[in-house]
Amino acid sequence: MDIDPSRLLADLRTLADFGRREVGIHRPAFSAADMEARRWLVGRMAEAGLEAAMDGIGNVLGRSPGPAPALLIGSHTDTVPGGGWLDGSLGVAYGLEIARARAATARSGGGAGEGAVDVISFQDEEGAHVPLFGSRSFCGEIDGPGAAAGAIEKAGLAGRNPARLESGRYLGYLEAHIEQGPRLETAAAGIGIVTSLVGIRRYLVRFRGRADHAGTTPMELRRDAGAAAVAFAQALRKTFQELAGAGTVWNVGAIHLEPGTSNIVPAVGEVLLEIRDPAQERLEALEQAIHEGAGAAAREFSVSGAVERAAQVAPAAMDEGLRRALADAARVHGAPSIDLTSGAGHDAMIMSRHLPAAMLFVPSIGGRSHCAEEDTKEADIVLGCRVMATAAAAILDRGAINS
Amino acid sequence: MDIDPSRLLADLRTLADFGRREVGIHRPAFSAADMEARRWLVGRMAEAGLEAAMDGIGNVLGRSPGPAPALLIGSHTDTVPGGGWLDGSLGVAYGLEIARARAATARSGGGAGEGAVDVISFQDEEGAHVPLFGSRSFCGEIDGPGAAAGAIEKAGLAGRNPARLESGRYLGYLEAHIEQGPRLETAAAGIGIVTSLVGIRRYLVRFRGRADHAGTTPMELRRDAGAAAVAFAQALRKTFQELAGAGTVWNVGAIHLEPGTSNIVPAVGEVLLEIRDPAQERLEALEQAIHEGAGAAAREFSVSGAVERAAQVAPAAMDEGLRRALADAARVHGAPSIDLTSGAGHDAMIMSRHLPAAMLFVPSIGGRSHCAEEDTKEADIVLGCRVMATAAAAILDRGAINS
Repeated sequence: MDIDPSRLLADLRTLADFGRREVGIHRPAFSAADMEARRWLVGRMAEAGLEAAMDGIGNVLGRSPGPAPALLIGSHTDTVPGGGWLDGSLGVAYGLEIARARAATARSGGGAGEGAVDVISFQDEEGAHVPLFGSRSFCGEIDGPGAAAGAIEKAGLAGRNPARLESGRYLGYLEAHIEQGPRLETAAAGIGIVTSLVGIRRYLVRFRGRADHAGTTPMELRRDAGAAAVAFAQALRKTFQELAGAGTVWNVGAIHLEPGTSNIVPAVGEVLLEIRDPAQERLEALEQAIHEGAGAAAREFSVSGAVERAAQVAPAAMDEGLRRALADAARVHGAPSIDLTSGAGHDAMIMSRHLPAAMLFVPSIGGRSHCAEEDTKEADIVLGCRVMATAAAAILDRGAINS
Repeated sequence: MDIDPSRLLADLRTLADFGRREVGIHRPAFSAADMEARRWLVGRMAEAGLEAAMDGIGNVLGRSPGPAPALLIGSHTDTVPGGGWLDGSLGVAYGLEIARARAATARSGGGAGEGAVDVISFQDEEGAHVPLFGSRSFCGEIDGPGAAAGAIEKAGLAGRNPARLESGRYLGYLEAHIEQGPRLETAAAGIGIVTSLVGIRRYLVRFRGRADHAGTTPMELRRDAGAAAVAFAQALRKTFQELAGAGTVWNVGAIHLEPGTSNIVPAVGEVLLEIRDPAQERLEALEQAIHEGAGAAAREFSVSGAVERAAQVAPAAMDEGLRRALADAARVHGAPSIDLTSGAGHDAMIMSRHLPAAMLFVPSIGGRSHCAEEDTKEADIVLGCRVMATAAAAILDRGAINS
């Protein structure tokens, strides 16, 4: 089946105008711009012959009238504040274009053309209210509005039911996304096939010492929680460098000292950090190092140290059969592809617990994302969609025969 | 001349009730509680036979009707929010009590009794608006309300003139203060005689790197301003330990990373720090180490680094003659005394540029200050006042003979 590059790019450009400001695109979940974009999407899905509706939490599902087995293709149309035009939108636009191409193939009687393509834009992947809200709700992992209650009410969605994953309908879930990193560019590969999404753990490490006058308290009598926080963070960097595998990344994102003035020895030193790795065992080892490092720094500076695990997401492996279909399709189009892990979370992480799921990455120029500079070459955008369309056709045709 | 211990302690206890809250005493400069305390002080001074008035910026000066040469004795009655009952108040109460004792001696015709004792409570030593505001204004180092303009207006002082140091009137300035540190307690000395007040320099060191997605950006491609800030602060601690003299102290009081979330590599890392030392040359050497350390960290993490000197106060030597008078007086009362530097700034620092000045410290229990737990044994409070009274009498008697 043939996708229409100009129609695909036009959809992406139209989407980019919802919430566009001087710098970047502002479409956080349930904002006026986000809701407007979602209503537009319902209209575009209907034009494509899908049964389209927005559910009670803002998920937009376009259901093909064709019979099961079907493929679900999508991502999200909400953005971070000041984000770019492709994060999320790309995967939804691919789904819409592939559904249209599939329907055209069916009408023309070309190919097998039996299986249906449904399209989805999940709500609040970026976590303006609840991270991965739409996919978690769709899969029944959470029930009810939670922290998004006020926003749902304000968006006029109160009273509508959430859409749920229809048991037995789908052969799998496909999601395309920009890489948000530099590896495809570096490897000169147009297509990335995700082997797994990394697990993520976040920690708040808090040292408590004593506030003292920084002019009159001798150095050796201080219980400096700030010095402990600094020593901890510095030592951890060395330890992590030793423990790291190829897919390990970490970040000390915030440090907070209290009371936070130059003339008082800090009574509190907090370090907010996260670790990411595709392997559960390595996450365990890194966590162990955090505990040991916090203990060592606390002892060195005569303060107390406590480690709180603030969040955790388990690594998610992508489906081998779907990955193979994507790799085969890349070869069909002569596109160099590489396997890689995803360092970021995506709706596919949630979906993979309930359906075979796979992700396709296209290159990010300069690796940039979540900013106005986020971009991908048009040729790469089009190539990615062609590869996914070919893979989708193969999966559906094979599935139709098997079912 | 004889001071009255119960009158002294009663004054201190009365002062402590202005601005008292559940935890600590809240009497920042120009607050309702501060103004109330200052009006009370004017009354107490008048009862003591002084010509007392509050000036246009809140300084309260009680002028003895006796002829020059005079001694000026005082400190400040403003507090930090949630402060203790002695920081500042002690020195003002000593001045008031010694002025009363001196007047009584004069009335009874005992001793020489010629010289006068003036008493002062400077405004905003703690810097709610302008640090050391009162003494700097009194000495003509600053003119006009500056950052305190709104507070002065609100306190109803607009239009009044500031009081100025009367040229030729004073033999010197004496200020008593709690030590705010543990050295007197450790040395089991009741009296500390300050040799000099340390110089203070404050710095804001700012690293600028690049905000990147902390999940998708490989470690080796990051320009992590937070990691630079941590490495800088940790290395500086080691360098300072090597450069430090007996009187050197430093503090990293605040660290600020931007944007400050766990999943974004910090684009900005700021470190707020200060150094204190009685020797100008050592301050220079420490400053040099800050510049070198910031440069090294910036290079290591491919970020930019900039050092801004946010504030500086030069070291202030106390007058040898006045110090000797205090030491002699301590011996008269059989009080063990030690020489020490003051790690904190005081009004005496400003006064020492314009008059011979000296400071007497009494022990702080547990070294605590600027908090509700700030305290000194009653016996130590009384002993300190006796020593200062004896020293004041000696200075005045000698001054009267010399003049």
